[in-house]
Amino acid sequence: MKTVEILCIGTELLMGNITNTNARFMAEECVSAGLSCLWQTTVGDNRQRMAQAIRTAKKRADIVLINGGLGPTEDDLTVEIAAKVCGRELTENRRVLKRIEEQMRVFVRNTPHARITRNNRKMALVPKGCKLFLNENGQAPGIVIRDGSSTLILLPGPPNELIPMFRNQVIPYLTGNKREVLSSVTAKIVNTGESQVAETLSDLIKEQTNPTIATYAKTGEVHVRVTASAKTEKEAKELLAPVKKELKKRFGSDLFTFREEESLEEAIVKLLKKQNRTLATAESCTGGLIASRIVNVPGSSAVFYGGAVTYSNREKVRQLGVKESTLKKDGAVSETCAAEMSDGTVRAFGSDVAIAVTGIAGPGGGSREKPVGLVYFSCTVGKTRTGRKLRLLGNRDKIRENAAQRALVLLRDCLLESQKKG
Amino acid sequence: MKTVEILCIGTELLMGNITNTNARFMAEECVSAGLSCLWQTTVGDNRQRMAQAIRTAKKRADIVLINGGLGPTEDDLTVEIAAKVCGRELTENRRVLKRIEEQMRVFVRNTPHARITRNNRKMALVPKGCKLFLNENGQAPGIVIRDGSSTLILLPGPPNELIPMFRNQVIPYLTGNKREVLSSVTAKIVNTGESQVAETLSDLIKEQTNPTIATYAKTGEVHVRVTASAKTEKEAKELLAPVKKELKKRFGSDLFTFREEESLEEAIVKLLKKQNRTLATAESCTGGLIASRIVNVPGSSAVFYGGAVTYSNREKVRQLGVKESTLKKDGAVSETCAAEMSDGTVRAFGSDVAIAVTGIAGPGGGSREKPVGLVYFSCTVGKTRTGRKLRLLGNRDKIRENAAQRALVLLRDCLLESQKKG
Repeated sequence: MKTVEILCIGTELLMGNITNTNARFMAEECVSAGLSCLWQTTVGDNRQRMAQAIRTAKKRADIVLINGGLGPTEDDLTVEIAAKVCGRELTENRRVLKRIEEQMRVFVRNTPHARITRNNRKMALVPKGCKLFLNENGQAPGIVIRDGSSTLILLPGPPNELIPMFRNQVIPYLTGNKREVLSSVTAKIVNTGESQVAETLSDLIKEQTNPTIATYAKTGEVHVRVTASAKTEKEAKELLAPVKKELKKRFGSDLFTFREEESLEEAIVKLLKKQNRTLATAESCTGGLIASRIVNVPGSSAVFYGGAVTYSNREKVRQLGVKESTLKKDGAVSETCAAEMSDGTVRAFGSDVAIAVTGIAGPGGGSREKPVGLVYFSCTVGKTRTGRKLRLLGNRDKIRENAAQRALVLLRDCLLESQKKG
Repeated sequence: MKTVEILCIGTELLMGNITNTNARFMAEECVSAGLSCLWQTTVGDNRQRMAQAIRTAKKRADIVLINGGLGPTEDDLTVEIAAKVCGRELTENRRVLKRIEEQMRVFVRNTPHARITRNNRKMALVPKGCKLFLNENGQAPGIVIRDGSSTLILLPGPPNELIPMFRNQVIPYLTGNKREVLSSVTAKIVNTGESQVAETLSDLIKEQTNPTIATYAKTGEVHVRVTASAKTEKEAKELLAPVKKELKKRFGSDLFTFREEESLEEAIVKLLKKQNRTLATAESCTGGLIASRIVNVPGSSAVFYGGAVTYSNREKVRQLGVKESTLKKDGAVSETCAAEMSDGTVRAFGSDVAIAVTGIAGPGGGSREKPVGLVYFSCTVGKTRTGRKLRLLGNRDKIRENAAQRALVLLRDCLLESQKKG
């Protein structure tokens, strides 16, 4: 098995300004791809320590993933230092330069005070004769430097550039010529906590060898990754099949997908399309998070009319027809208000389905009867309405994120329920 | 200045099962205490690599913070390995053992199936003659091993044990005889790219010693962190003052805050409060992201009425009064549609200000005239309307995130502009 060292570059990491989520991401992806990650190192934007770290990593790992320091500024030194350590010369890559110039032209046109600077050209300087990964979401390309028995892979720091490059280009590159094929599925489960998922699967987890089974707790979801290793893709898939069947049997409809890339909102858009139903949203404390997740699904326009962000009481009344008397008697955070919100949304938008959320995200606004984290949900599907009340934990951000997730879970539950009846 | 290496132990970190938030926490605390953190390393629960990592860290840092692997199980090896590397013998510490026994008695009384095991005693085994930090929230004590010129500090892995021990005991221990205080501010800048910010500041960056200056690119923002070191907090702040003034002079109103914790939306909510104005939003391709960011500011309810997520054409017409003829002639992604959206939002919501966005987030729906990434913005402040047209890059996620950011930038620009006139 090939060994990996993850080497992250950045003074902001060293100083603790940001959390190193990239190291975790790359480690998780490596493990899934059957690579053994033995070391993680972080150094700042410092020539001497960067060179030392690269030399050390090359000695103890087959593959060194170097992340960060590829940008345009003077303290972005990764390419220069890595090339020096490997004795490579830098040369300006025309294809990369052309791309950067195109991107900059668009940027400059858009941004009143912007202009192209010499720094941008710097990102087209790459070691001679190296494989490059083009950057779909930024300018600096990924760079592969093969040096003796070790492979250095230089990757951009911003997660939105790193993640697609790593999944779509680096992992296929690294696993392209290995003997064993790894195939994995991710079962995503709602309405169940991680320890309960682990307990339900304890017999399978205990006897695991191939496929392997691992659980990951996410916000309002548990992911079970099942990975099989075999000589061919087909054989690996055959090893996965019985485990998938068993998972489906144990978790039923709470398991909403086996595809890593399929989100809950994507599953919901698919379900709405299948049922030929349209959706609208009404959000108070989540403030647009639910609509935003739905809109993020390509093609959602076919089923999503739109949403009302009714953060104020007057908007709940004006847009959704919530009764003044309800707000007075029960308050905006109440079962009745949530119910009137989802019914009112179906009426106002003319959609088949509506999901509504109202709650207290904090930090202020809580009381003994209605503490911070209290959230009411209501889902209207045609003439049927279903309510749910939860007490969520965490800070404002976390409560809102969790509330959006739980709203989507309720929405899906209701769509499935109506299908059963229909 | 004393140098620090943070060495984290744990296979769950290496495999990417959990994010290394402890490294960030300790790094940030060290910086605040005037310690210079130069390396972070992570290894798994493996004897050989742990010993190697400790030996390497001792060589290159004055203080090595070793985190994790102090627990009761068989793969908790940190104390044993660190003692071996420093040539120390382990001995059972009576005070620690007594505390563990007391804690276990309480635990067993409260927990039906629990009992004291031999493993618990293991945590009382510490190297002879070492300073200990008692663990207020767990069993394993922190351990200081002084060895030659270097100091090893062994610390428990669970954050709720580490954080109070670090703040209350480790930092006072380390800074007992320190001289330096660090103070920093973060200037956040919009309407300007990172390389341009770096160029504008190149003279300051070149001559930097104290304070130091570093730039960070964020989505639609550039952050400039300025850090000063001095004998007292007051002196450090005095060193920062002229640099802050210079930054304000060079970037003008594009610099919206000096506070690390203040977001663009927070600055906007403050501005709205100051101007005594109310806001509503109208979103197509951003689908609620703008509203969601505004709602995430505590206290935003004072100025934010709500928003319309008008993802479909019919909702643009119904909720905002966009003309059917506009949609037919110019289409939903057009200057006129954006303008009618923001004007219509002010009308429908009765707010003083409205920001509207309509664009093509992709991956489908683009054409030659209207490519993916084309986004129109419109901001209405009273009777003044300002439009902006941008071509944004990246995948659907990135385009939407960027569009929300640029909408907030336009909104702020318009609020400032109206203030100048008013």
